Amino acid sequence: MKLVVAGSAALDTIRTPREVHEDTLGGSSVYASLSASFFSRVALISVVGEDFPRKYLKVLRKRNIDISGLNMLPGRTFRWEAAYDGNLEHARTIRTEINVFDGFTPSIPYTVGGNSNLLLANIDPGLQNYILKKIKPSGLVACDTMNLWIERDLKGLLKLLKKIDIFLINDAEARQLSGEKNLMDAARYISSKGAGMTVIKKGEHGVLFFNKGLCFTSPAYLVGKVKDPTGAGDTFAGGMMGYITGKKKIDTGVLRRALVHGSIMASFAVERFSADSLARIGPEDIRGRYKEFRELTRF
Amino acid sequence: MKLVVAGSAALDTIRTPREVHEDTLGGSSVYASLSASFFSRVALISVVGEDFPRKYLKVLRKRNIDISGLNMLPGRTFRWEAAYDGNLEHARTIRTEINVFDGFTPSIPYTVGGNSNLLLANIDPGLQNYILKKIKPSGLVACDTMNLWIERDLKGLLKLLKKIDIFLINDAEARQLSGEKNLMDAARYISSKGAGMTVIKKGEHGVLFFNKGLCFTSPAYLVGKVKDPTGAGDTFAGGMMGYITGKKKIDTGVLRRALVHGSIMASFAVERFSADSLARIGPEDIRGRYKEFRELTRF
Repeated sequence: MKLVVAGSAALDTIRTPREVHEDTLGGSSVYASLSASFFSRVALISVVGEDFPRKYLKVLRKRNIDISGLNMLPGRTFRWEAAYDGNLEHARTIRTEINVFDGFTPSIPYTVGGNSNLLLANIDPGLQNYILKKIKPSGLVACDTMNLWIERDLKGLLKLLKKIDIFLINDAEARQLSGEKNLMDAARYISSKGAGMTVIKKGEHGVLFFNKGLCFTSPAYLVGKVKDPTGAGDTFAGGMMGYITGKKKIDTGVLRRALVHGSIMASFAVERFSADSLARIGPEDIRGRYKEFRELTRF
Repeated sequence: MKLVVAGSAALDTIRTPREVHEDTLGGSSVYASLSASFFSRVALISVVGEDFPRKYLKVLRKRNIDISGLNMLPGRTFRWEAAYDGNLEHARTIRTEINVFDGFTPSIPYTVGGNSNLLLANIDPGLQNYILKKIKPSGLVACDTMNLWIERDLKGLLKLLKKIDIFLINDAEARQLSGEKNLMDAARYISSKGAGMTVIKKGEHGVLFFNKGLCFTSPAYLVGKVKDPTGAGDTFAGGMMGYITGKKKIDTGVLRRALVHGSIMASFAVERFSADSLARIGPEDIRGRYKEFRELTRF
């Protein structure tokens, strides 16, 4: 079993009150793939332009990520520039350059897909729907989204919800999508729309998982120094789905530990700038943090 | 061992978008005492006016709370009126009547104190300092506060911090007091100011506990329908300190479970209006919710 991850690949310029980092490795599918690669085989579907730095391809290959589905098109890579507030909580978008994503339809090698789970990382729901139809995964389908798509393509998103198994969304977006203020009500509403399993990401406050049979909540790993929260949600989704994909059988225990591993991977992501920092950790770092996480939460 | 709880007693008028409840039972020491009474013997120190309803005294007595330290003075009971926003997150104070608290110095029966822990529930730090000096508890001293005292009597609060064992504060106030944005940094700062153990209350996002030897974080119990968040923090503090007081030996395991029981008691408090609703639950409700809490969080 492998995990197919589809989503954006980007060059991010990130401004925090202390630092500016230009054209760093970013994009939902990139963060998610790198995160998942510690737990299972991963194949990436996305698109970059001719200007995409070769060193970043190397980072992906070094993590054994199958990049045969990473389309390379004439033109420039998708770019996002944002500035974070003093609390590093809210990103204000300064510039978005769609570039090669404009009208993009992915060419997907026939070797990608088959016996796989699929993570539709945050991207246009139209594209998510298209990829889901093309891949026809034999396993679980998870889907992440953002406020932009709730506002611009609610119809596409609701159509998608009926076809997926696990839906990931942050707390503000869950309230926006459901019209419910209480997060349990919001999760219940979203589950009823077809997804079945709903994960509400609350950033530094952890996650809430909800389906008919299991309600689980977990705090976030406590990070001493948050440097850049970009990609934390994507990294969470990748870690969670990678962990599930790496297990032979999925039960509630695996689901619980998958959520914890998602949180742990996200804790690494926010400690440094740029997605390639994820490639610098090792399995022993993850094991160490899992142990700490147990100490942090057991009672 | 018993727990002495000192703080305010009030008649609250609470407005939420759906309901208005007038002159309900409130005050930090009342919420905390009722909560603690499920785990240990409790003695209450506070003040009410002649208009304090006899039915509320009955509620306290029925929970076996020693009210010999509940001063009854000529005049009206302290009153607070507030309106909550649509998310029931922020209370806007409409009216505060200090009444019998104006210049109040408690008369404390000699039977109160001695072999006891002390919870200084939220109240003027000057009064907290006075009571601490009078009681001379043999055990642990915990202290809760609010933004008002950080603004009005920071000096008194910092003086108190040096003399107590456990300090309780909410997340916004912890950031305000420490000048640190990261809650771990804030907790570390506060611990260094003398309290040793710091509990940061994050409302629906749970709690963070910090001292030199133990870092613990726990989500909140998931409440389906929050009706009135008034007194949740006081109820948490009372449950936590009551649980500790009820145990023969205090170790990290007891501290962890004390925090969880604080959260559980707070979950009961927010489901209904008025502190006397806490008297309507039973030990079996607490046990049931503890079991659910384990299911909600184990991995």
